[in-house]
Amino acid sequence: MKGTVLYGERDIRFEDRPEPTITKPTDAILRLSATCVCGSDLWPYRGIQAIAQPTPMGHEYCGIVEEVGKEVKSIKRGQFVVGSFATSDNTCVICRHGYQSSCTQREFMSAAQAPYLRVPLADGTLVATSDLPSKELIPDLLAVSDVLGTGWFAADAANVKAGSTVAVVGDGAVGLLGVLSAKQMGAERIIAMSRHAPRQKLAREFGATDIVTERGDEGVARIKELTKGIGADSVLECVGTQQSMMQAIQSIRPGGYVGYVGVPHGVSLNLETMFYSHVHLHGGPAPVRRYLPELMKLVLDGKINPGKVFDLTLPLDQVAEGYRAMDERRAIKTLLRTNGA
Amino acid sequence: MKGTVLYGERDIRFEDRPEPTITKPTDAILRLSATCVCGSDLWPYRGIQAIAQPTPMGHEYCGIVEEVGKEVKSIKRGQFVVGSFATSDNTCVICRHGYQSSCTQREFMSAAQAPYLRVPLADGTLVATSDLPSKELIPDLLAVSDVLGTGWFAADAANVKAGSTVAVVGDGAVGLLGVLSAKQMGAERIIAMSRHAPRQKLAREFGATDIVTERGDEGVARIKELTKGIGADSVLECVGTQQSMMQAIQSIRPGGYVGYVGVPHGVSLNLETMFYSHVHLHGGPAPVRRYLPELMKLVLDGKINPGKVFDLTLPLDQVAEGYRAMDERRAIKTLLRTNGA
Repeated sequence: MKGTVLYGERDIRFEDRPEPTITKPTDAILRLSATCVCGSDLWPYRGIQAIAQPTPMGHEYCGIVEEVGKEVKSIKRGQFVVGSFATSDNTCVICRHGYQSSCTQREFMSAAQAPYLRVPLADGTLVATSDLPSKELIPDLLAVSDVLGTGWFAADAANVKAGSTVAVVGDGAVGLLGVLSAKQMGAERIIAMSRHAPRQKLAREFGATDIVTERGDEGVARIKELTKGIGADSVLECVGTQQSMMQAIQSIRPGGYVGYVGVPHGVSLNLETMFYSHVHLHGGPAPVRRYLPELMKLVLDGKINPGKVFDLTLPLDQVAEGYRAMDERRAIKTLLRTNGA
Repeated sequence: MKGTVLYGERDIRFEDRPEPTITKPTDAILRLSATCVCGSDLWPYRGIQAIAQPTPMGHEYCGIVEEVGKEVKSIKRGQFVVGSFATSDNTCVICRHGYQSSCTQREFMSAAQAPYLRVPLADGTLVATSDLPSKELIPDLLAVSDVLGTGWFAADAANVKAGSTVAVVGDGAVGLLGVLSAKQMGAERIIAMSRHAPRQKLAREFGATDIVTERGDEGVARIKELTKGIGADSVLECVGTQQSMMQAIQSIRPGGYVGYVGVPHGVSLNLETMFYSHVHLHGGPAPVRRYLPELMKLVLDGKINPGKVFDLTLPLDQVAEGYRAMDERRAIKTLLRTNGA
């Protein structure tokens, strides 16, 4: 088969790769229905995060189970499944606390921008639907695998409740689905920070009540203005830079919550500033597995359409253009068709 | 009257000071029953935190109301009251969220190491007992004013619940009362980090089940060893240095909670480390006012004896020795008798 490999800065190749096989008895092999490019893929693509060697890319996936290892019990050949970008046994003490993305057996997935994928710890990582879903739902179910799960975790980590005033820093796919998540959790006011018209539009569709175009200190001032000088109850940080993180922390009311899911790059926090802000801070790689059943049900019941973040669809062999379009912000998020299911 | 003034590094003077008077109609004047020296007083005393001018010291207090301003409604002359080190109106939106120590009208108290004290925003800052308490209870009630309230907040911020495994970094009075608080909240296992025999003893009395004498990376390794390699559910950080904070963060299980109340001095956090630890981080100046009614009741009902942290009692005019004893770690905490009530 052919799969996606990053060779260096902006050097994505779609090339021959060995077809994955069962290597451990807890593995499953999936024939992917679709895959996509993640905002976090852009860090190494842009050369900001170094890679030591050519690296198979992709960690978002859904598809049909082709084969399972001998110890796989709950996942069966022929089922449609969605999995998390982090594998988990879903039984260890950390998983039981709901942090499957820190499971004692965790591996971060890779090589999913391909037609076939090996998934370790299949029973603890994958969730199957009861029936095969219609093709129209594939983008929505694919979104659950990471980008929605991550936006949802941001909102959950930021303690969004019915009636909350929420600000979202970052208008990438995760930030936009953070807006959708906050809306689902009953937020009364959702302030999306964005200066890009198509993203503002999608934020409004997902439930944003206000748009703030200012950034940094001006962005903070604008949030304070919109909240009677007090600040937001919850801020979702979906970028991962020093500026975005400070903007998030400074935008909350004393005692408010920042949920951060943007992978931090060179971010350092002065604890004294945080101390006097009374901020609650929580985040990390989203424990998507915790949320999969609930989020897949919301999609299957037609309650949410997270797949709307895919504003570019390409055949898998054009994956390099998919990266370019996101890098140049011509696309919010690229879905890659595999013709696999 | 005479009161306590810090002139510079290790230069505490007990000298003539104007007797406080009502300056705003929301003020009260208290005749203090007792006051004490706080661990945080040692930062400026040691010259680590610069002072611009001679500074009246002390922010922990309880006593009898001598006089109230015209707008004071609930607090009456003759009542025994306990107040927080941070004033609050207890009505603003931030107070209503339980963060009275970030009240929009907050002032940090000072000048309490004296026989008389002016307390601003008396109705929102002070809580009265229904009867005058017995003299034996004065140390316990004084402890509620800051040091217990702060240890309690550390445990609350660290999400201590029935059955939790808790570690406490710092064996000062706040850390020791963090142990007591965790015990009250139902923690099953409480690991106190201390290398001082008298403090270890008090930690055991307050409910510690394990003592760890190692610090830094060795301390972290020991906590991991005691928790089957997973880490503690909750860690109370009661020091405020880079080392203590890193020790706290590294000692939790993924998804666990660090409550930090040690005033941070030059502490900087790498967000990437925190991201992958899945830590919840919350802290700040304790909103003692939120907890006053509950904690005063626990004292008055004889359920807790937080006053045990006072292992040195001196008359107020020997306040300088009270600071010295704590600075040299000869005393955990010094109570100052005012003969005021």
